[in-house]
Order: sequence, then C-alpha cells, then structure tokens
Amino acid sequence: MTRTLEVDLGDRSYPIHIGPGLLHDPVLYRPHIRGRQVMIVTNETVAPLYLAPLRAALDGLEVCEVVLPDGEQYKTLEVWNRIFDALLDARFARDCTLIALGGGVVGDMAGFAAACYQRGVAFIQVPTTLLSQVDSSVGGKTGINHPAGKNMIGAFHQPLAVIADTETLDTLPQRELSAGLAEVLKYGLIRDPAFLDWLESHMAELLSRDPEALAHAIRRSCEIKAQIVAEDELESGQRALLNLGHTFGHAIETASGYGNWLHGEAVGAGMCMAADLSARMGWLAEADVERVRRLVTCAGLPTEPPPELDAERFRELMAVDKKVLDGRLRLVLLTAVGEAVISDEIDQDQLTATLSARRP
Amino acid sequence: MTRTLEVDLGDRSYPIHIGPGLLHDPVLYRPHIRGRQVMIVTNETVAPLYLAPLRAALDGLEVCEVVLPDGEQYKTLEVWNRIFDALLDARFARDCTLIALGGGVVGDMAGFAAACYQRGVAFIQVPTTLLSQVDSSVGGKTGINHPAGKNMIGAFHQPLAVIADTETLDTLPQRELSAGLAEVLKYGLIRDPAFLDWLESHMAELLSRDPEALAHAIRRSCEIKAQIVAEDELESGQRALLNLGHTFGHAIETASGYGNWLHGEAVGAGMCMAADLSARMGWLAEADVERVRRLVTCAGLPTEPPPELDAERFRELMAVDKKVLDGRLRLVLLTAVGEAVISDEIDQDQLTATLSARRP
Repeated sequence: MTRTLEVDLGDRSYPIHIGPGLLHDPVLYRPHIRGRQVMIVTNETVAPLYLAPLRAALDGLEVCEVVLPDGEQYKTLEVWNRIFDALLDARFARDCTLIALGGGVVGDMAGFAAACYQRGVAFIQVPTTLLSQVDSSVGGKTGINHPAGKNMIGAFHQPLAVIADTETLDTLPQRELSAGLAEVLKYGLIRDPAFLDWLESHMAELLSRDPEALAHAIRRSCEIKAQIVAEDELESGQRALLNLGHTFGHAIETASGYGNWLHGEAVGAGMCMAADLSARMGWLAEADVERVRRLVTCAGLPTEPPPELDAERFRELMAVDKKVLDGRLRLVLLTAVGEAVISDEIDQDQLTATLSARRP
Repeated sequence: MTRTLEVDLGDRSYPIHIGPGLLHDPVLYRPHIRGRQVMIVTNETVAPLYLAPLRAALDGLEVCEVVLPDGEQYKTLEVWNRIFDALLDARFARDCTLIALGGGVVGDMAGFAAACYQRGVAFIQVPTTLLSQVDSSVGGKTGINHPAGKNMIGAFHQPLAVIADTETLDTLPQRELSAGLAEVLKYGLIRDPAFLDWLESHMAELLSRDPEALAHAIRRSCEIKAQIVAEDELESGQRALLNLGHTFGHAIETASGYGNWLHGEAVGAGMCMAADLSARMGWLAEADVERVRRLVTCAGLPTEPPPELDAERFRELMAVDKKVLDGRLRLVLLTAVGEAVISDEIDQDQLTATLSARRP
C-alpha cells in the first residue's frame, strides 16, 4: 500500500512516502534526524489528533513542540516568530530538526523557520491535509504572507523527507478535502489529460474518501510535482506552470482577508478565470472552459471570484505577483486541457473582461 | 588606487571593489542590475551623507529608498519588516535589486530581506564602515537578532558585488573605526602572523586614518576572508575560525543590551578571552596573551567583559551559540599568534576561570 517517490535534486534529493499509518512509523523518521533535538511545529486543530502518535514515533529523542493557531490569517511574521521563541527557549542547536505536522500553513511556516533558524536547519514534512500532501509539502517553497501579498516573504528550503499518511485524511473537513482537489485538478490541467479523464470519472469516489482513489490521486499528483521541481527547482522557467490559477487566486485571498477563502477554493475559481482568459485569447475552446468549470464545480469548489472584487482592485493585487517581471504581468494559461503555457502577452481588454465577468 | 578581489564561489562568484570614490561610479553598479527597480536600504546616519551621490550613480533607474534607524538594537524582526513594506508599497518585482548602503547592521538586514523577498532577489553591498568593509559585507551571512541571541535568524545569501569606497571612512566616528580594527586584528590572529606584525607597527597610522594604511588593511582582510569563504561557504568547517572571539562577544552584546557595546568592541574583549582560555589550556604562551591584549588596547578597544557579567550568565548565553553541536560548546582558540583551531574539548574549570577573570 505504501509507495515511495523520489524528488531528484542531486545531493538534496529526498523521498516522499505515501500510505496509510505512516505517521506512527519510527523507521521513516530516524534516517533523517541527525542531532537529538526535534521541534514539532503544528496547530491547535491538528495537535489533539496527531501530536501524541508522532511523539511516540520519536521516542528517545529530545522532542519539543510549538502549537500555532489554525488558519491562513495566522501565516504572519508575528506568529512565525513564535517558532524562534520556542527554539531558543529550548536552546536548540544547529543540528536540530523541525517537523511540520499539519497542512500547508504549518508546512510553509515551519519550513521557512527551518530555512532561517541559525541560517538553516533540517526539516521533515508530515502533511495531514490533501492540499499539503499533493502540493505544498513537496518542492521546498516556504514562506509567510504580507498584508499586501501572499507568500511574499520566504525561501526555497527542501525537506529531508515528506511523510504523507493517507489515514490522516479521515479527519479532514469536507471543505478542505475539496480545497485539496483543486491542486489535484491543476496537475491534470497543466500536464496530464489522461489523469484529468480519470479524475472526471472518479470524483465521486474521491469526495467520499475512497482510500484507493485518494491514494492514486496523491501519488500521481506527487509524481508530476516531483518531476517539475526536479527540472526547475528555483522556478526560473517551467515550474511556474504549477501556478495555474494562482495569480487570480492569490488576489482573491488577499482581497477577501486571509483565511476567509481557503487557498484551494481561490485556486479553483482562479483556474476557471485562467480558462476563461485562454478562451478569450483564442487559445482554448469554449467547450474546454465549460469542462474546467464543471470539474471545479464537481470538486465542490467555487468557479467565480467574489462579486465585490472588481477589475481595478484585481489588477492592483495582481501587480505584486511574484511572476511579474520588468513590470509585465505573466500568467499561466491553457492551450488545451492538459497543456499550459506561461505568457506575458496578455491582451489588456480581454483580461479586463475576464476580471469583470461573472458567469451564471 | 582601486583594487578588485574576487570571491570564488562558482556561478555565485562576485567582485569586491576597494578604493576611493567608488560609491559615485555608475560603471560598478550597472553590470549587476538586471531589472529597473532598485531599493536602497540605509539608515538615518548614513542617508544624509551618501544617499544623494549613490542615487546620482543610479540615474535612469527606478530608485526607491528605505531609511532605518541606526544601531544594533534595531536589527529586529519588526524593523526588518519595514523593508518588505517599502518593497511592496513600490510594487517591486522579483527582478529588482536591493543595495545595502551603510554598516554591518544595514548590510545584514538588507541582505536577509533580499534573501527572503519573493524567495530571493539580487543585492549589492556598499559598506560605509571599516567593520563592514573588512568583514560583514563579504561572505553572504545575513540576518537579524532575537532577544535571546545575536544573528539567530538569517540566511546565506551572497551579494552580486561589494563596493567598498574607502573615502566613506572619513566620516566614521573614531569609536567605530576602532570597532572595525577588531575584525582586522582577527584576520592576523587566525591566519597571518606577518599581517599581525604589520598591524602592530602601523596601528598609529590606521587610527589617524592614513589612506594608504587603511587601504592595505582592508585589502588584506578581504583577501583572507574571500579565501576562507571560498573554501567553506556554509561554515561546515574552517569558516568557523572567523568567529574568533565572537562566542564570548555575542554573549557580551546580548547581556549588555544590543547597541550598548559595538560589535567590534565585544569581539575585541572576546578575542582577549579566547587568548586567555588558550593559555589556561596550555596552548598559548602567556607572552602571546599579553601581545593580543596590547594590540586590542592599542586599537582603542576593551580587553575585558563588563564587570557585572558573571560566569553563570555567560554560560547561559553561550549555550545558544550557533557553534554548539549535540549540546557541546565549540570555541575558536589560538595555538599561536597567527594560528587558530576550533575545539569542543573545553575544560570546564578553565572556562569558568576565563569567564570570571578580570585582569588589571
């Protein structure tokens, strides 16, 4: 049942273990823990569920924990600093290891703290949400939000291992399961039409948490992500394809106040907007736009941005996107279902139409 | 008069330009500025002196500035965040360039902001103090302080160029000139007895700011630093020798409240303590300890830690030093004048004697 993939990054390569019950398995952690000090970074929701079994798996080591509040609105500089308070209170040395136990917010903050504590210490990702298992725990992007923009402060810092225990999805709220499916759909849309077909015909099983279906979706997503990251670790090129829907989505999250829209929900609407713009530019058939919208809807996600977010405000927020270069906005667009490109040749009128449109 | 050294780090190699009037020279900046947006990070003391000429040298680019308060006590998370506020207010993109104009505090904070803004942007060091010209601007160590320890949060992020204008030292307060000489002495003590002899016989010229003498001291210091950094960029080994006196010194700075002792003053006293401990352990002759103390005194620096800092508090503060591994304190000690080693075999009674001793 357990499958191990490898992210191939030379001397920074690492395994992704995917399967049921892995969180409890001491054997998966030990090869990656060099010193004796381990700091578990988790949140108030996940701690009551999974902190005790993880601590048990680390028996014999000097284990401390820091429990953060739960939610994207807490991915701030101030909350991030609590991790350093905990590390220094416990006098943790440079050979310590941080373990991120939770979803994307915990992983991003713990990873960024690991990147910066004493200029860099070891860390392990133990993602407990679908979104973090298929996306944010893999690839080394870490960071925090600034009021003016998502993930604006951060670092590339690869984990030593990703341990994705599929049984932790049993306790995931349905809304978060749907949010994770947004990133799963993304992999199909940018790279793998056959996977997208499979997702289309298995959405009901995924939503009802069929273990086999979820395991397949996670494995295929991680395979695609691992391959793209290995080709372009620091996003100088093709890795940006992984941001399909994210420029629109980040603007929605920032405008709505962090934590009101889940990241995956904003990406769902953002992918529909990317498809809409692709069609307006003549790159994608209208039938494919409808197919994208249907898939997003079936996954339980919104297809439209909030009604009060107008084109002008959208543009302001998108102007600070990390893909802007030399003042030019670059967007990931679709040339077919299963094929994406990065383009900075955006027709401004068509963009305005996409930002203003609200389909029935 | 201008001399250019190279820090050899493969595709991250960069030049160190040393000479009079370099700050004004557009030619030195342009090859390293990729986009059009440049953010100058400086402080309230340096801005009135050198911001205008630097802006003039960048004529034609989109230049903004952020002026921080002056002093080690402001090397905090909160002040660091002001750099991100400025970058996002001005909608700076990932192809922007940060320029650090000032001393070590400005360089450390601007460099760390460059390491983290949008997960890493370009930066150039324009050091305006002796300490930053000979030490902190070279080698890529960046970071901020935590109340519990100096430089505990940071990153390795190499600049694209270091532009050390020796004429900026004309405006440097005498106390800061002396503080810079602490790091100059350090290079002689750890690696170059001939340079130490030269420093001994030219200390008066250095203190009276003879341009030739200062230029020689800066060049030789940068040569030694560049060599050590090229051999061990991430401090897995010999680079730690550059921390001679720093474990003691950081404890003095943290205990006294950041900004009360200048970094170089604390390093001066710390090097005397390292020499004292080296002698107590039988590795260094007593005459050499006296020679180190005499050099530190001649440079205008303290040789003793503050009287109220007792051995117990010293140990507490040193326990969070970045060179602690597996719970063992590691210190840089002298085996001769011009030769240093890193040791974790510290006799605890002798260490207590060093921490408690106050020589007449």
